[in-house]
Amino acid sequence: MRIVFTVTYDGTGYSGWQVQKNGLGVQEVLERAYIELFGERVRFTASGRTDAGVHAAGQVAHIDATTAVPPEGIMRAMNSVLPPQVKILSAAYAKEGFHARYSAKRKTYVYRAYESRMDLPLKSRFAVKVPTGHDEEKMRAAAKLFEGEHDFSAFCASDSSVKTTTRTIFLSEVVKSGADIEIRLTGNGFLYKMVRTVAGTILAAGENKISEAQILAALETGKRSLVGKTMPPEGLTLESVEYF
Amino acid sequence: MRIVFTVTYDGTGYSGWQVQKNGLGVQEVLERAYIELFGERVRFTASGRTDAGVHAAGQVAHIDATTAVPPEGIMRAMNSVLPPQVKILSAAYAKEGFHARYSAKRKTYVYRAYESRMDLPLKSRFAVKVPTGHDEEKMRAAAKLFEGEHDFSAFCASDSSVKTTTRTIFLSEVVKSGADIEIRLTGNGFLYKMVRTVAGTILAAGENKISEAQILAALETGKRSLVGKTMPPEGLTLESVEYF
Repeated sequence: MRIVFTVTYDGTGYSGWQVQKNGLGVQEVLERAYIELFGERVRFTASGRTDAGVHAAGQVAHIDATTAVPPEGIMRAMNSVLPPQVKILSAAYAKEGFHARYSAKRKTYVYRAYESRMDLPLKSRFAVKVPTGHDEEKMRAAAKLFEGEHDFSAFCASDSSVKTTTRTIFLSEVVKSGADIEIRLTGNGFLYKMVRTVAGTILAAGENKISEAQILAALETGKRSLVGKTMPPEGLTLESVEYF
Repeated sequence: MRIVFTVTYDGTGYSGWQVQKNGLGVQEVLERAYIELFGERVRFTASGRTDAGVHAAGQVAHIDATTAVPPEGIMRAMNSVLPPQVKILSAAYAKEGFHARYSAKRKTYVYRAYESRMDLPLKSRFAVKVPTGHDEEKMRAAAKLFEGEHDFSAFCASDSSVKTTTRTIFLSEVVKSGADIEIRLTGNGFLYKMVRTVAGTILAAGENKISEAQILAALETGKRSLVGKTMPPEGLTLESVEYF
């Protein structure tokens, strides 16, 4: 039986979804917990990888299980042995043909930053310090330029596995509340480091360092020299994955 | 010269402001950093202790320094050697007669909870899981009962050092936003574990487990059996201390 889980994790200290040479991946944490409980090695297949240090409020992953324990029971058992940084939020039998990666229609990522002269211990786990004075309207205008279908080759790190660098962004929004900046992107898929580079570009626009014309040129020409920096992983959270 | 600092810390893993038998206190972290930089043992005197696991957005502490380095320079040097969990937000020479504890006029604490069936890794560092279904209006009405001058003996753990259990609460507010509950208290002072017990009582009122009449009776009679439970420390943050 294929079972689908919604998983949330604090990515601090993990090597990302996948195991790496010198780090423990969230996938491995889940698989170890499953073995411990059910004595069986299953593979947790996610909607996609998240990088080292990136968080998830609602990652989706499936397994093909042989246990007779129903999904809710697996969830409760897993949550009792998982570390506090990783928890399963929901579990259900998957519909015919469901695949956590190939069936995904949309993903939403949120990038969080805060304006401060210094790193703030109460914010720095899930957000990144930026200089003060970001213009909210300029960031919103810059964010809107990413909506629609574009070639995002200027906004991604090289990854030979992708067939195309064209992606569709359905929603690209910025909210500034006091010192807190939240950049929210919903799209049909994202290239390697794309959200963090789009976030860096929107933030640079808010500092008057990158113009709207420059962003449009980057989307048209694919020139990396036109875009902002790739922001650090700790500000990024995979909010949700949608399958309808 | 007396120098006054605003300090923020993530209290996770610390024994509180003060050093304890089996734990490192935030005070000690600051004093060690100061010795490392200036070769001198100074005492950081805070507005008051915070318990193990409690956070601070704006704790205030003073030192009596002999260094000629100006406050901003001390702050910058300290922040370069302090761990990411502890940072100094501001530094200034204190006015004549200033004392971080005795000059404090008001303190504001925030208690954060979230409604969830399970612990959420992205929230559990600074907030505490509570059952779903808290009534916001009932919590607000309960919170208002604490405003004014009251004998809080029903709401504190025993502490032989206090002369009186009477305190004045200037503001007692609750905001519920989706699953997140924030209880904010400003007062002229707080007894040992008082904020966490008031928070537990307000939350119990939101679950219809404690009535307004029962809270009024607890304030009048001092009976501990009438009040809610003392909530865990990780939901509590000392927001600010005011001296005017």
